[in-house]
Amino acid sequence: MQGTVLHGPGDIRFEEVPEPRLEQPTDAIVRIAATCVCGSDLWPYRGLQDIKGPTRMGHEYCGYVEELGPAVHGLRKGQFVVGSFVNSDNTCPACSIGYQSSCEQRRFVSEAQSPLLRVAHAGGTLVPAPEVPDAALLPGLLACSDVLGTGWYAADAARVRPGGTVVVVGDGAVGQMAVLAAREQGAGRIIVMSRHPLRQQLARHFGATDIVAERGAEGVGAILEMTRGVGADSVLECVGTDAAMHQALGVTRRGGSMAFVGVPHGVQLSGAALFMSQLRMEGGPAPVRRFLPDLMARVLAGRMDPSPVFDLRLPLGEVAEGYRAMDERRAIKVLLMP
Amino acid sequence: MQGTVLHGPGDIRFEEVPEPRLEQPTDAIVRIAATCVCGSDLWPYRGLQDIKGPTRMGHEYCGYVEELGPAVHGLRKGQFVVGSFVNSDNTCPACSIGYQSSCEQRRFVSEAQSPLLRVAHAGGTLVPAPEVPDAALLPGLLACSDVLGTGWYAADAARVRPGGTVVVVGDGAVGQMAVLAAREQGAGRIIVMSRHPLRQQLARHFGATDIVAERGAEGVGAILEMTRGVGADSVLECVGTDAAMHQALGVTRRGGSMAFVGVPHGVQLSGAALFMSQLRMEGGPAPVRRFLPDLMARVLAGRMDPSPVFDLRLPLGEVAEGYRAMDERRAIKVLLMP
Repeated sequence: MQGTVLHGPGDIRFEEVPEPRLEQPTDAIVRIAATCVCGSDLWPYRGLQDIKGPTRMGHEYCGYVEELGPAVHGLRKGQFVVGSFVNSDNTCPACSIGYQSSCEQRRFVSEAQSPLLRVAHAGGTLVPAPEVPDAALLPGLLACSDVLGTGWYAADAARVRPGGTVVVVGDGAVGQMAVLAAREQGAGRIIVMSRHPLRQQLARHFGATDIVAERGAEGVGAILEMTRGVGADSVLECVGTDAAMHQALGVTRRGGSMAFVGVPHGVQLSGAALFMSQLRMEGGPAPVRRFLPDLMARVLAGRMDPSPVFDLRLPLGEVAEGYRAMDERRAIKVLLMP
Repeated sequence: MQGTVLHGPGDIRFEEVPEPRLEQPTDAIVRIAATCVCGSDLWPYRGLQDIKGPTRMGHEYCGYVEELGPAVHGLRKGQFVVGSFVNSDNTCPACSIGYQSSCEQRRFVSEAQSPLLRVAHAGGTLVPAPEVPDAALLPGLLACSDVLGTGWYAADAARVRPGGTVVVVGDGAVGQMAVLAAREQGAGRIIVMSRHPLRQQLARHFGATDIVAERGAEGVGAILEMTRGVGADSVLECVGTDAAMHQALGVTRRGGSMAFVGVPHGVQLSGAALFMSQLRMEGGPAPVRRFLPDLMARVLAGRMDPSPVFDLRLPLGEVAEGYRAMDERRAIKVLLMP
């Protein structure tokens, strides 16, 4: 079959790769219905994160169970499933308290921009839909796999509460989903830091009540002014740069909560500064598996529609154009259909 | 009157100082019944924290209301009161969510090792006992002012839960009180990192179930071994050094909580490392005012006795010997009686 391989900075190819086969009795093979390009794929694509030789890409997916190993329980061939970007057994101590992204047996998915995918620990990883969903719901269900699950985790980790004031740092795909999650979790006010008119518009669609275009100290000042000098109850950092992280810390109220879900690159924090700002922090790879059944149910019932986060749809074979569009910020998030 | 003044490293004097007077209508004057030396007093005493000229010392106290400004409500002359080491109005946005140590009007107390103390925002700061307590209870009530309140906050911020596994990093006074707090909050297992036989013994008195004498990577390894490789649900960092902080982070389970209440000195944290260890963190100056009514009630009713944390009692005039004893680790915490 053909799959997506990164050969070096800017060099993404859709080329012949081995077809996946069951390797462990707990594996499944999934026929991909939809996959997509993640903001984190751009780090190696831009040469900002090293790769060791040609690297298979893609970690967001939904699709149909094609084959099942003999030790997989709870799944049937032909079922429609969504998996998160981390394989997890869903039984270890970390899984048992809802941190499946820290599973003792975790494996980060990395070959999902392909027609077929081997999924390890399939029984713990894949969540089936009650029936094969309408094609129109595929983008929304695909979003559950990472970008919505990650935004949802950000809102959960930042303790979004009904009526609370929320700041979202970042207007990329995860930031957009964090806005949607904050709205669904009952936030009273959702301030988004964004300078791009189209992204501001999308954020408003998902529930943003206020936009702050300033950055750095000016952006912090603007938000403090909007919150009577107090700061926000919940701050969701969805970028991962040092600047974004410090912006997030600067607008969290004392006793408030800051969640960071953007993979940190070059972020250094001073213990003394954290001490004096007295806030709660939690971050890490989102334990999407914890939220998947709830998120899928919301999408399947039409109660929540994350699909507008995909603003470009391409055939999987045109994956290279998808990377280019995101790299050049012509697209927020690119959906790929095999 | 005579009070405690630090003139330079190792040079603590009990000497003539101005008697405090009401300055604001919200002030009170408290006649000190008992005060003490804090571990954090040792930083400037050891020359590890600069002072700008002669500096009045002391921030832990209990005593009797001597005088009240006309705008102080809820207090009467002669009442026995305990205050925290931070003055707070108890009405601002930070106070209203229980973070009085981040009060918009906060002032850190700094003249309590004296017979009389002016307390700003007295109505928001001081908590009265229902009646003047028995002298035997003074040490326990004094402990509420900072060291117990801080240990209690550590247990609260680290989400100690009934039956949970707790690690306390630090066997000083705050560490000892963190052990007591963890026990009172229902911890199932309390592992203390300590190398000093006398301090290990005191920790066991307060509720420690296990002692780990190793430090650094060895200490982390020992605790991981004791917890099936998982780490602790709640970790209470009560020192403030970079080594202690990283030890604490290293033994917190994924999805667990780490509280840091030792004032950080030279602590630097990597955003990427925090991301991958996926834990909750909260730290800062303890909002003791939030806990004071409950802590005082427990001590007054005899349900909890923190007083053994004071292992040396001196007349206030011998304060210099108190500093020496703590500096030389001959005492864990020194009680001073005017």
